Amino acid sequence: MRILILGGDGYLGWPTAMRFSARGHEVSVVDNFSRRRWHNEHSTDSLTPIRPLAERIEVWRGISGNEIRSFVGNIEDGEFLDEVVAETMPEAVVHYGEQASAPYSMISRKHAVQTQHTNVIGTLNLLFSIRDRVPSCHLVKLGTMGEYGTPNIDIEEGYIEIEHKGRKDTLPFPKLPGSLYHLSKVHDSHNIHFACRIWGLRATDLNQGVVYGIETDETAQDERLVTRFDYDEIFGTALNRFCVQAVIGHPLTVYGKGGQTRGFLNIRDTLQCVELAVSKPAELGEFRVFNQFTEQFTVTELAELVKHAGSELGYDVSIQSYPNPRIELEEHYYNAANTKLRDLGLQPHLLGPELVQSTLKTIEHYKGRVISRAIAPRTTWKPEELNPGHTLAATSARD
Amino acid sequence: MRILILGGDGYLGWPTAMRFSARGHEVSVVDNFSRRRWHNEHSTDSLTPIRPLAERIEVWRGISGNEIRSFVGNIEDGEFLDEVVAETMPEAVVHYGEQASAPYSMISRKHAVQTQHTNVIGTLNLLFSIRDRVPSCHLVKLGTMGEYGTPNIDIEEGYIEIEHKGRKDTLPFPKLPGSLYHLSKVHDSHNIHFACRIWGLRATDLNQGVVYGIETDETAQDERLVTRFDYDEIFGTALNRFCVQAVIGHPLTVYGKGGQTRGFLNIRDTLQCVELAVSKPAELGEFRVFNQFTEQFTVTELAELVKHAGSELGYDVSIQSYPNPRIELEEHYYNAANTKLRDLGLQPHLLGPELVQSTLKTIEHYKGRVISRAIAPRTTWKPEELNPGHTLAATSARD
Repeated sequence: MRILILGGDGYLGWPTAMRFSARGHEVSVVDNFSRRRWHNEHSTDSLTPIRPLAERIEVWRGISGNEIRSFVGNIEDGEFLDEVVAETMPEAVVHYGEQASAPYSMISRKHAVQTQHTNVIGTLNLLFSIRDRVPSCHLVKLGTMGEYGTPNIDIEEGYIEIEHKGRKDTLPFPKLPGSLYHLSKVHDSHNIHFACRIWGLRATDLNQGVVYGIETDETAQDERLVTRFDYDEIFGTALNRFCVQAVIGHPLTVYGKGGQTRGFLNIRDTLQCVELAVSKPAELGEFRVFNQFTEQFTVTELAELVKHAGSELGYDVSIQSYPNPRIELEEHYYNAANTKLRDLGLQPHLLGPELVQSTLKTIEHYKGRVISRAIAPRTTWKPEELNPGHTLAATSARD
Repeated sequence: MRILILGGDGYLGWPTAMRFSARGHEVSVVDNFSRRRWHNEHSTDSLTPIRPLAERIEVWRGISGNEIRSFVGNIEDGEFLDEVVAETMPEAVVHYGEQASAPYSMISRKHAVQTQHTNVIGTLNLLFSIRDRVPSCHLVKLGTMGEYGTPNIDIEEGYIEIEHKGRKDTLPFPKLPGSLYHLSKVHDSHNIHFACRIWGLRATDLNQGVVYGIETDETAQDERLVTRFDYDEIFGTALNRFCVQAVIGHPLTVYGKGGQTRGFLNIRDTLQCVELAVSKPAELGEFRVFNQFTEQFTVTELAELVKHAGSELGYDVSIQSYPNPRIELEEHYYNAANTKLRDLGLQPHLLGPELVQSTLKTIEHYKGRVISRAIAPRTTWKPEELNPGHTLAATSARD
């Protein structure tokens, strides 16, 4: 199958590219290296020493004998993207090509505008190119569980049947996203749904939970194929951050009460889910939504898990509550459906101490690369002047 | 009160500016004349001979003794907008400054991207400027009833209480917008709701129906104060278009079966609603949504009304069904709530034959300015190649 992967140099994009290539598909990737650039701008970096894209592709060719084509450019540039689509004529597009950090989107107006412009316009360009070039192509779009927020009812997979004043309809599940980044994904979902309804395109929106883990079958084959691993306050996510913190002796940064509940999944399961979505596509005209996570945890549960797993390896792990830089409920109802991907065949890798310990060992290997300045939270959801009395993170913890 | 009106040169923006000025408020307007420019690009024009903004303001000053300040620029330019907000320090912002045509947004990728960029980024810039400069300012944002689409349940005002699996929550009403323009308004609503929830801003989202009418108390005072009146297939809306068609002897262009039901209101009621919203603002942190229309009609009902009112004035009016250029249900359930503005004191001007006849007489006065080439529908929701067998509008009707 001809598969085009947007954001193919990223944490998930690069392992996904190798996975499909390993399965014998004809894979092309698009990237503009924005994540690498944003790290430069913030003087942060991936824990793992990732190689330039061309080198990754060359190493992969050496190992697998398979060619991955690459295109460098911005998908916000509709003409560039359209040329790529016309040249590669994909049967499936896997779209990871977005600014994917909530804190990044909250830094300033400039960052907010950049996030919504990149994500919304990039996806809109893609919809037009699919419509005009490859209308039966299946779009597999990475969304986020964060689109739903934390409503006081069970979260369903994309739609909800509503009975109201004696009538019924099945409608898009209402969204209460928690950052300007999460909002951009809500906008995308609405745009893609429209393209399916009006133009008859086919799409699967994967509302993904928080991904953890560092290794996939393909990245494990050669150190030069390693994927990025972010642990800083902007691009790092909960469990990955906690593991790095445990290894370097930084207190685990629990925001506020730590009762925030989210869905989580292993990076290996991300690849499984994307493979399942691609191999069992949506129907023409269908906008299919899957909630892509395997387990729910509170932040405190994750911190405890890392503390115990770390202690067994001899690390002295402490947990510290930081004033929450985000505006979010810290104790709330949360129960989200996630049966559709299992029904398609997903076999979850559940989170346990062994996985945490294996991650800790890998991190130990790269410990010398950790930039500890970048760990404590600095990016707030509200400017100080709107937030009197809210002082962030024990300032001492920043230094 | 210091009031800033974005899109203050437009169909509704200019009469709104005069209304608040007449009431003694300190009014500033922002516009980039994009509607005038888009008409130039399509070789179309307002039926009414609108004057340049500076002349309008000068005439208004002569008549009322009141000054309206003007700022020319793009609100997508965050720095420009921020300077305007810093200089005018508004207590209320009335935001009409968007690309407001559904067909325009569907012409091509370029038009779609322009629409979503202008609308979403402009509003996002505004939210940041309000947050940073005038956090207690009340944002009165023009949304559209078209955000809801035509669900099979009653449409409520912005929110709906959902009971699901034994739990309850009041959540944003699910949206099924019918064009890329309507989607941009959905995106705006989500962004504004977020700014109220997270930053404590205050906003009223006016989900407006289709506006008709040509005259307000202020525009009637001098012909040079007239507002624009669009009747072409891109910028014109149902009733206004039908009235022009009746006067020039063009068949009334009913799309498809004509059973499409929408909410409508008189331009005088738009001004009333906006005044009510401004004078009774939302609370800090509140995102208030009003459905702003006074009556529901099907397209066929409107056409019949114009036909009968026109016949009485001696016009020979025919009704013609055109292949629908849009993708929409042509027969559907529709029942939308609109009590909140009435509860605040709205006194509706209902639609009847007298109003239609008075509009027909005004149009007769400007009949010589009608560009009939621009009336029949040309802009389709689907490109021909996705739409086999669907040929638009009796081609003869185009010429």
